[in-house]
Amino acid sequence: MRAWRGYIVGSALLEYRLNRELQEEHDLTLTDYEILARLSEQPGMRMRMTHLAADVASSKSRVSHQIGRLELAQLVRRESCASDGRGVFAILTDRGFEVLSAAATTHLRGVRQHLVDALTADQLTALTVIFEGLAERLRAQP
Amino acid sequence: MRAWRGYIVGSALLEYRLNRELQEEHDLTLTDYEILARLSEQPGMRMRMTHLAADVASSKSRVSHQIGRLELAQLVRRESCASDGRGVFAILTDRGFEVLSAAATTHLRGVRQHLVDALTADQLTALTVIFEGLAERLRAQP
Repeated sequence: MRAWRGYIVGSALLEYRLNRELQEEHDLTLTDYEILARLSEQPGMRMRMTHLAADVASSKSRVSHQIGRLELAQLVRRESCASDGRGVFAILTDRGFEVLSAAATTHLRGVRQHLVDALTADQLTALTVIFEGLAERLRAQP
Repeated sequence: MRAWRGYIVGSALLEYRLNRELQEEHDLTLTDYEILARLSEQPGMRMRMTHLAADVASSKSRVSHQIGRLELAQLVRRESCASDGRGVFAILTDRGFEVLSAAATTHLRGVRQHLVDALTADQLTALTVIFEGLAERLRAQP
């Protein structure tokens, strides 16, 4: 339980800080940032809503709500899939890409300052192995 | 960035799973659980709202909203501080303690299954040291 308590408090403080920095400087939440970043890495900067939800490990209804807010801010738009009539795509707009690019500076600085610089090389490797392993295991047990 | 991406995805999947198990079995979110658990550990099962927010690494307005929901569900009640007229306490109710006790079984099982059993002893130690260190560092840089 000490590992779990240490993790839950440390990770909450980390996310709270990164979230606050993004909100103060760019009016984006950390989750907004994750969604925009994920879209920016896709061909055509577009992604099926269902894949997006799976990728950011969130529920469809929560992602749908978040995309709704990003759409109001004109950072993302939604489009029905023309080829099969099923599914809806979320697409990063030009404005979304601009906001993401500006926010990336803040986010990368925060991750470096509050995570990377705080750990030894061995700790950083351990962290990567631990959470990639947990993700793989969780995905194998739906 | 690989460490960060691995961490953000793994930790989101872990919290999503633990949250889902608590919601399905006890109609509590993981954050509800953390608040009830924190209150249960205090003398008189009561805590100043401001201390509670600092302890769960959340903002005062967010904690205030969550306590409002828990109060509606009769798991927590609020009381003004009699001695100094400042500050408001959140207090765990008998019903809150019962719900927490039942939910603890689910939560401890989930943490064991999805975190502790998934890691070696060395990884668990590394995880504890990493996040306790991050928390200490973040608290020192407000």
